[in-house]
Amino acid sequence: MSFNTFGHVFRVTTWGESHGPALGATVDGCPPGIEISEEFIQVFLDRRRPGQSKQTTQRQEPDQVRILSGVFEGKTTGTPIQLMIENTDQRSRDYGEISRQFRPGHADITYHQKYGIRDYRGGGRSSARETAARVAAGGVAQAVLAQLVPGLRIFGYMIQMGAKHINRARFDREEILRNPFFIPDAEAVDEWADYLGAIRKNHNSVGAMIELVAEGCPAGLGAPIYAKMDTDLAAAMMSINAVKGVEIGEGMAAAELTGVDNADEIVMGPNGPEFLSNHAGGILGGITTGQPVVLRFSVKPTSSILTPRRSINTAGEEVEVITKGRHDPCVGIRAVPVAEAMMACVILDHLLLDRAQTGGRRGQIG
Amino acid sequence: MSFNTFGHVFRVTTWGESHGPALGATVDGCPPGIEISEEFIQVFLDRRRPGQSKQTTQRQEPDQVRILSGVFEGKTTGTPIQLMIENTDQRSRDYGEISRQFRPGHADITYHQKYGIRDYRGGGRSSARETAARVAAGGVAQAVLAQLVPGLRIFGYMIQMGAKHINRARFDREEILRNPFFIPDAEAVDEWADYLGAIRKNHNSVGAMIELVAEGCPAGLGAPIYAKMDTDLAAAMMSINAVKGVEIGEGMAAAELTGVDNADEIVMGPNGPEFLSNHAGGILGGITTGQPVVLRFSVKPTSSILTPRRSINTAGEEVEVITKGRHDPCVGIRAVPVAEAMMACVILDHLLLDRAQTGGRRGQIG
Amino acid sequence: MSFNTFGHVFRVTTWGESHGPALGATVDGCPPGIEISEEFIQVFLDRRRPGQSKQTTQRQEPDQVRILSGVFEGKTTGTPIQLMIENTDQRSRDYGEISRQFRPGHADITYHQKYGIRDYRGGGRSSARETAARVAAGGVAQAVLAQLVPGLRIFGYMIQMGAKHINRARFDREEILRNPFFIPDAEAVDEWADYLGAIRKNHNSVGAMIELVAEGCPAGLGAPIYAKMDTDLAAAMMSINAVKGVEIGEGMAAAELTGVDNADEIVMGPNGPEFLSNHAGGILGGITTGQPVVLRFSVKPTSSILTPRRSINTAGEEVEVITKGRHDPCVGIRAVPVAEAMMACVILDHLLLDRAQTGGRRGQIG
Amino acid sequence: MSFNTFGHVFRVTTWGESHGPALGATVDGCPPGIEISEEFIQVFLDRRRPGQSKQTTQRQEPDQVRILSGVFEGKTTGTPIQLMIENTDQRSRDYGEISRQFRPGHADITYHQKYGIRDYRGGGRSSARETAARVAAGGVAQAVLAQLVPGLRIFGYMIQMGAKHINRARFDREEILRNPFFIPDAEAVDEWADYLGAIRKNHNSVGAMIELVAEGCPAGLGAPIYAKMDTDLAAAMMSINAVKGVEIGEGMAAAELTGVDNADEIVMGPNGPEFLSNHAGGILGGITTGQPVVLRFSVKPTSSILTPRRSINTAGEEVEVITKGRHDPCVGIRAVPVAEAMMACVILDHLLLDRAQTGGRRGQIG
Repeated sequence: MSFNTFGHVFRVTTWGESHGPALGATVDGCPPGIEISEEFIQVFLDRRRPGQSKQTTQRQEPDQVRILSGVFEGKTTGTPIQLMIENTDQRSRDYGEISRQFRPGHADITYHQKYGIRDYRGGGRSSARETAARVAAGGVAQAVLAQLVPGLRIFGYMIQMGAKHINRARFDREEILRNPFFIPDAEAVDEWADYLGAIRKNHNSVGAMIELVAEGCPAGLGAPIYAKMDTDLAAAMMSINAVKGVEIGEGMAAAELTGVDNADEIVMGPNGPEFLSNHAGGILGGITTGQPVVLRFSVKPTSSILTPRRSINTAGEEVEVITKGRHDPCVGIRAVPVAEAMMACVILDHLLLDRAQTGGRRGQIG
Repeated sequence: MSFNTFGHVFRVTTWGESHGPALGATVDGCPPGIEISEEFIQVFLDRRRPGQSKQTTQRQEPDQVRILSGVFEGKTTGTPIQLMIENTDQRSRDYGEISRQFRPGHADITYHQKYGIRDYRGGGRSSARETAARVAAGGVAQAVLAQLVPGLRIFGYMIQMGAKHINRARFDREEILRNPFFIPDAEAVDEWADYLGAIRKNHNSVGAMIELVAEGCPAGLGAPIYAKMDTDLAAAMMSINAVKGVEIGEGMAAAELTGVDNADEIVMGPNGPEFLSNHAGGILGGITTGQPVVLRFSVKPTSSILTPRRSINTAGEEVEVITKGRHDPCVGIRAVPVAEAMMACVILDHLLLDRAQTGGRRGQIG
Repeated sequence: MSFNTFGHVFRVTTWGESHGPALGATVDGCPPGIEISEEFIQVFLDRRRPGQSKQTTQRQEPDQVRILSGVFEGKTTGTPIQLMIENTDQRSRDYGEISRQFRPGHADITYHQKYGIRDYRGGGRSSARETAARVAAGGVAQAVLAQLVPGLRIFGYMIQMGAKHINRARFDREEILRNPFFIPDAEAVDEWADYLGAIRKNHNSVGAMIELVAEGCPAGLGAPIYAKMDTDLAAAMMSINAVKGVEIGEGMAAAELTGVDNADEIVMGPNGPEFLSNHAGGILGGITTGQPVVLRFSVKPTSSILTPRRSINTAGEEVEVITKGRHDPCVGIRAVPVAEAMMACVILDHLLLDRAQTGGRRGQIG
Repeated sequence: MSFNTFGHVFRVTTWGESHGPALGATVDGCPPGIEISEEFIQVFLDRRRPGQSKQTTQRQEPDQVRILSGVFEGKTTGTPIQLMIENTDQRSRDYGEISRQFRPGHADITYHQKYGIRDYRGGGRSSARETAARVAAGGVAQAVLAQLVPGLRIFGYMIQMGAKHINRARFDREEILRNPFFIPDAEAVDEWADYLGAIRKNHNSVGAMIELVAEGCPAGLGAPIYAKMDTDLAAAMMSINAVKGVEIGEGMAAAELTGVDNADEIVMGPNGPEFLSNHAGGILGGITTGQPVVLRFSVKPTSSILTPRRSINTAGEEVEVITKGRHDPCVGIRAVPVAEAMMACVILDHLLLDRAQTGGRRGQIG
């Protein structure tokens, strides 16, 4: 039922609107005895924080997380963890027009139609600000995973922004956190910056493609048939604002492959089975294989733009909508840390789920 | 938790293995007083049934559904509906080798690793035969939707099979159910048949892309943030065997669009808001707009092929695997009725979910 | 949401009506690798089976369970287990009157009011026959518990039937399964038989009280705040047909106790903490203490009786209702194996739930 | 899964510890467009607030609720409502001893055993302070019910405290909110006050029995078989701290009744069916009949008392425990508004659940 909750065992409920007093996440089902602090979580939030470069919204939010419950003397107690982020930079302004107009491509009209009422200030609940709460919850998941699966490493990066693609030949993982685009391609940074600058100057916005990888994910996670790892990852990504597509491994390209080409052949390595390729993206039958989990998702261009577009208002009158305010020209950029947080939550959730059913034991090979 | 259940209110639990005595679906939460019969459901099952053309597995299964509960004097009573399909064509054979080997690209190895035991006969629980249960449940959903949303029409069709694409200029909806590929392009049928024949002769298989549309879906369905309509549809598609990617509206292509191009402008029509385009695929902010819901998903090539591939067995020995037996050379074909069934279930589920929270009332425009 | 499902991880969905072709239970989340057979489950069903003595309904049902899925070569596979019991003794008869009348004290009227339609044959879904499905599912839980918690022993017994109470001074656990009342008091059996015989001859029925004990239940099971062990046990008992009250430990009598009297003092025994009393009934703060879990529940008298009672029919006309047919004069008797099954399911569910969150580790004392 | 969540559609997750910075409730699934304010909710919290009379703990907490999300311009928006109550009167003190000792009859030992860590300050998560969050959530439910079911009235009252019982011949509903015991019997107030004063002076505490009634509850609410109205009410009551038993209608006394006596005969009144008695407590087959829903539950005596009791500490040493601090001598008193809140949540939840499945339509009689 859970409109605003995700997860089976590690359950995260986010709450809050863009311009309300605060937003946050209620995290239930967290294992006890895990070291955690506001500082640890803050690192993840700072990556997503707006106003850090010209490439993202100029809204200045410290996004300072407070842990209100569930942690005692620096450790989780197994009770719900409440993570609160106060909204501080809610510019007071006249919402007159925007409160009655529906931005094309935005959730304004559907929230109005469904609920008959909407908090129009900054997009209310449909604002991408909600994702700050996910990132905070993801920080908790990362702390638990660091203790339970020490070798796991989750990282995302942009591979495309509009007409620009990274050059995989120059792939450098260390570069990802050094540039404002989260791209693993140092040479492309300036070019992307110019490209996005021109987009912004043209009162336009642009879409993006993100790739997400989990290395060191144990085999055996994922619960067929309707709580498969790929099913839950697809749902997690698709739930992020503006995401329009998700693919695992070969993804959409699998439609043109043959079975001979797509087979990931297996050999016996010193530590167990080894796959000679990873067309599957680390998941077979909804269960992880032990290979890297690899997925990609697309983010549509920001719908709030300065270029006038035709629309209607609540009175049913036709209007031209120009969205002023502080909006990311490419929302895909800040989707990177959000997606990492979602993936951390999903993997942890399946780790706990698997402990429940199988006790974490594994069938032997050899 | 619900490993084998999907849906929030209209909840479907499937059960059964490929070569066990039977398989089926337990449908809970169905509205009462809906006319339903085994014959009505059978129509959907017959579309998915194997052995009907050269293009699908030659396994002969009548796939005859029996309603064991929840229906009285031809109407649903609001209690759980048990739909059972007996397995009849389970060829007795020697499973010696296959019981110990892992087919590359198949769930054999992950089920073994997770559970330490697997029903290897015909793929057991991971077999695509499980999807027959979904189609039966989808039949129930279709019966309810026919009464509650008379104008709704859900239909899927293949748009790509390996190197072959349909020609959208020849799109003919009536053609879909007339050919074994479920393609809306009569002229392409022979060409596709030749192509797939060659694939099969080469002991190979091939992937596919399916498009799925819901016309007449009311506005206001979908529950942000984590039970969005697109989120639930993505999960539903990704849960189907062999699916590797899902996209809504512009989908993965949204990554290269600009905000100006992607905006679906709105005007006021005689019956309310009208959109001038549908880049969004009928969903904004996770809630339906009233436009057609449009999605696509890819299906990887069948992993069970006659071409030898390298793999290992349960003893950890390296082996060459050749999968004999009756396998679809393109599992994507029969995924069409399965996807329609899943979409019917998801839309009905959200209709009921929306009745719960909003009572089905809608915010006015104009 | 789960109208017909109980359990968090070990999830049981029952389906079926009294006079339909079959009824059963879909069991999801069962650990893999557990030895199980139809014979093992049948033992539990046979205890609950009608027609075995004069004290219960004369309906003759073999209640033979079939495992349709989830078990392979005698072991659970981790996939859903479908348990089906075919209805064989559905006497064909004229339901004319009963189909339109509402028995006082029965669910006839509320099912009619809620759903607008009901399967009136033998009570349909509201019949106590549904509990056969629970007993079958409980058999699966017992098999898992036998492997995971070898020392656990769950047993129930009647302590009261109308005006008759057992004499606890004569308590003999071995006696419980030797008499048709499931009472631990051999000397009382004849007296109870005479008493119930007189009730039946008077076209009457009578209520009952059952006590249920789990010995050897490990400490640490139960998940505060809303999935407490006592909360879930109370819900499980209250869900059984005709149950009107549930209490744990001192139960309703706790209202008259003082804190000094009610304290279960603790000393240090050779194997850890030992309690000097068990007013708590083995549960503190919703979590098991390691002491025996003790609860009691009341069952109201059968509402289907031969004595005429005033009621109305679907046309709104006042009528006198006499319920013919084969009804237990005391439904409490057969509630004993049903309650044991429910307790087995709840304890197993919490064992798995605890594995998920804590990994089954325990805080040390001393 | 939902450790800290209750409800199917109207879902309440509570969070927070007794001596942490704050506690609260996240309310998801609330219908949109409902008028609500902090003042409205505060009325319910003030009833439960400590420090208002000699009969309850002297801890002084304003228990001021803040709405952090989900409400816009005085109305619910359909998004999650975050209700936060800051803890202000957390006396700083030395917890040295209590941090290592286990109070007999308290959750200290089970939290320690389960989680290996516990917030011992004031009982942490197991403190009755958690119930403030429920009362706040209940206030939201009351606001929704006031709009959707105008005739509904939910009220609870004590009927027993230790050796003292109310005199039902003097039952006066108006009196309930006028005395510190929530008893409908004005003449008993002084006597009860003296009785409880003596209990306190003796360094003791005492149990209680509460009766809870919902008048004007519509027929048709409750979802058989495992989300029955009585099942969910029993779970809701049993989840309240210190509750040890719950009964509906005749409750435990049903064990001694006969079917003839227990039958609630039905006649046809001017507005539909009328029952001549209410042994059932307003629920048949798990579905409301339209009669008053009547239940009772017992509350054990406070386990924190000044009389020394034998126990052990975390080092496994035997100790004598005396619990100083500000504790209610009868926790049952403040359980009254908590139980009302839980009942409001459960009834609203079932109202929404019923809208989902049946659309709120009702089978006709006459």
